[in-house]
Amino acid sequence: MESLLEGSFDGPLYPVNPYSPEILGLKAYPSIVDIPHQVDMAVIVVAAGAVPFALQDCARKGVRAAAIITSGFKEMGTESGSRLQEEIIALANHAGISIIGPNTIGVVSPHASLNATFLPSFKDVARGNVALVAQSGGVCSFMLHSAIDERLGISLATSLGNRANVDFADILEYLAGHEHTRAIALHIEGVEDPRRLMESARRVVRSKPVVAYKPAGPIPDRAAYSHTGSLAGSHNAYGAAFAQAGIVAVGHTEELLDVAKALAFQPPPRGDRVAVLSLQAGPAMIAASACYRFGLSLAELSPRSRERLRELAMTPFFSDNPIDMAGAFMQTGDNHRTWLEILQLALDDENVDVVILSALHHRLDIPFIEMVAALAQDRRPDKPLVVSRDSPLGAARPEIARLEESGIPVYPSPDRAVRAMAGLVRYGRLARTD
Amino acid sequence: MESLLEGSFDGPLYPVNPYSPEILGLKAYPSIVDIPHQVDMAVIVVAAGAVPFALQDCARKGVRAAAIITSGFKEMGTESGSRLQEEIIALANHAGISIIGPNTIGVVSPHASLNATFLPSFKDVARGNVALVAQSGGVCSFMLHSAIDERLGISLATSLGNRANVDFADILEYLAGHEHTRAIALHIEGVEDPRRLMESARRVVRSKPVVAYKPAGPIPDRAAYSHTGSLAGSHNAYGAAFAQAGIVAVGHTEELLDVAKALAFQPPPRGDRVAVLSLQAGPAMIAASACYRFGLSLAELSPRSRERLRELAMTPFFSDNPIDMAGAFMQTGDNHRTWLEILQLALDDENVDVVILSALHHRLDIPFIEMVAALAQDRRPDKPLVVSRDSPLGAARPEIARLEESGIPVYPSPDRAVRAMAGLVRYGRLARTD
Repeated sequence: MESLLEGSFDGPLYPVNPYSPEILGLKAYPSIVDIPHQVDMAVIVVAAGAVPFALQDCARKGVRAAAIITSGFKEMGTESGSRLQEEIIALANHAGISIIGPNTIGVVSPHASLNATFLPSFKDVARGNVALVAQSGGVCSFMLHSAIDERLGISLATSLGNRANVDFADILEYLAGHEHTRAIALHIEGVEDPRRLMESARRVVRSKPVVAYKPAGPIPDRAAYSHTGSLAGSHNAYGAAFAQAGIVAVGHTEELLDVAKALAFQPPPRGDRVAVLSLQAGPAMIAASACYRFGLSLAELSPRSRERLRELAMTPFFSDNPIDMAGAFMQTGDNHRTWLEILQLALDDENVDVVILSALHHRLDIPFIEMVAALAQDRRPDKPLVVSRDSPLGAARPEIARLEESGIPVYPSPDRAVRAMAGLVRYGRLARTD
Repeated sequence: MESLLEGSFDGPLYPVNPYSPEILGLKAYPSIVDIPHQVDMAVIVVAAGAVPFALQDCARKGVRAAAIITSGFKEMGTESGSRLQEEIIALANHAGISIIGPNTIGVVSPHASLNATFLPSFKDVARGNVALVAQSGGVCSFMLHSAIDERLGISLATSLGNRANVDFADILEYLAGHEHTRAIALHIEGVEDPRRLMESARRVVRSKPVVAYKPAGPIPDRAAYSHTGSLAGSHNAYGAAFAQAGIVAVGHTEELLDVAKALAFQPPPRGDRVAVLSLQAGPAMIAASACYRFGLSLAELSPRSRERLRELAMTPFFSDNPIDMAGAFMQTGDNHRTWLEILQLALDDENVDVVILSALHHRLDIPFIEMVAALAQDRRPDKPLVVSRDSPLGAARPEIARLEESGIPVYPSPDRAVRAMAGLVRYGRLARTD
């Protein structure tokens, strides 16, 4: 209730509690059936043994959706836990109730200001276009906290927990039609029916990109059983299935969110030829090194581009890809306009599939960043552009917000920008081989 | 001057400028020789062509150290740039002046509140025990901004730029005797005399661990020449030399700072057997997966530990390594004390070399974190302990500060905690084979 109230959800809220007439200032009802209005969704937090009774009341009330936060079911590894879970599945299926959980953190729907979880801190999750579906509540919580800190906009977030009757396949089908969602990030420990998941994904990725992280190694494979009561296949088998289904596979949670962000912001590139532009020389090399590490190639610029760059460059070095933009500074007088011309050159070059611009935070460069945002707003985004800009103590937040409002994803380091772009390239490749 | 003044440096500052009697409220001198006091260090920002004259004045004044921020020397790739650099090297060597640069960002010495760089934002760099030496000013700046955001304490930071007469080998020798430095982080693009660097490192690592990042790939190898005017060897050759010299090699800047932090905080472990403890199940699997990815092994706990864990655990799962601490919650009533017992068990277990504790931010766990900090303060740190705790919008900052004051490095994700620990393990291995 505290989460719902602090999240400023503007729909009606009805606390249900047989022992108290009022909860956090709201009139409470002894049972859900006593509420004199229609109820769209129940959030169930009673003890495990009482969940079947709560569900029966939901069925009588005609509720069609429930998030069961309560744990103590199949994940306990005990026979009684498994039996209790079977009981609620039978009840829910019979009554046509879709269940998120049990053993879920709940549901966060920022566009509806809905924080139906047990952590009030999720009220700070920004509205956006990345849907985040984790198997584990802890991992969902961790990633949402990252999203808050990094200002990654979320369309919907939840952890599926024990997946009574809503599994990854179901939520994917739902998200395919979810208006605010443009990219889907999955944290998967293991599912009972991988084939069903992959078939759903194959359909969904035609309209919305899906990126997935499955922890690798023998322990996660074994542990998935105890944690969510599901048989996990080996990480390698999932890797192959992900690729076949058109899902972009990643190695950890930071990469999961970074790639999902790129996918939500930018179109897939036609190839893997990267142009690296940088306002500083050192970071240009870091970006070039990251391209090498993530298997991207540095584009060989067209003769036309190279000729123009030679005209603009002050020194003979770094006038090719990666392009050290500072090299064009002193010669021209109006360096920001020159930098913009170079950016446009890279975006227009037929030998370039993606452009990364590394622009370490410096207050003197802010007008240039504003020009980049304006440029992005004007042009049709047929070629991905990704920016790397750090923001010490939030100093670069305004211009980063301007870039992202113009559809350009911004990352705090060249390494992360390139890694996100590598995910975008893999998605483009999967989409083409489809 | 703005950087120096905003950084609250408490020593005397003397602006030098022939055209102005006062700069930012301070009396300015026409030349450094006109200053009626001893000068310890000159920060030179005049145009490239004027640098030799400024250095001659420094020599006459008896100054022994200078940071030359000015660029336009060998890094230009022009003959005149190279000649100018040779000229200042000859001048400096003859006068016995040690030069940081030219083409340096300057020097940050937080323990002296000294920010002798062209970025006033470095006033926010916290005092600590990691020395940060980059070849590129942009990379140094980027990493210092990260350090500010992540509250990583720095003992000294600089970029060596063109390394007129102070190279990596020299700064390593200096840092070996630098009282505030406990670990040294290097960003190296390439040096003319790798052998000299490795020989210095071999001596220095006996007392202080060194971790290094060299961007990999053909472009960084080639570009190092144009950027700092030095011939870079191939990344692979450096990798082998780093290992021989006892330097821990890492793959990017985030890992560089994370590993340096672990090295500054904790002793090297005796082996690679990790105990993973977690307050949440999902992150336990992420940590286990990261151990697998970074080549660490999960410790097989001693029979004594396993027996005690079975007594404490509520469910049959996760009572082995990784240890799901929440499993011990409901059975005991006093869960924080039980968790502390489990932590102590892992720290005392002869089959465990390092302990990682994953504790996602939750306000109810704060008293436990305080207990961990108190425990760390009491015991001799003969076995590394690393904590992972996220801090949405800084919410966990107080208890993270308590942990770090007690000598425990804290990372925002299980992945980064494990990766840092892997660096610590590599250092332990290098130290043993020495």
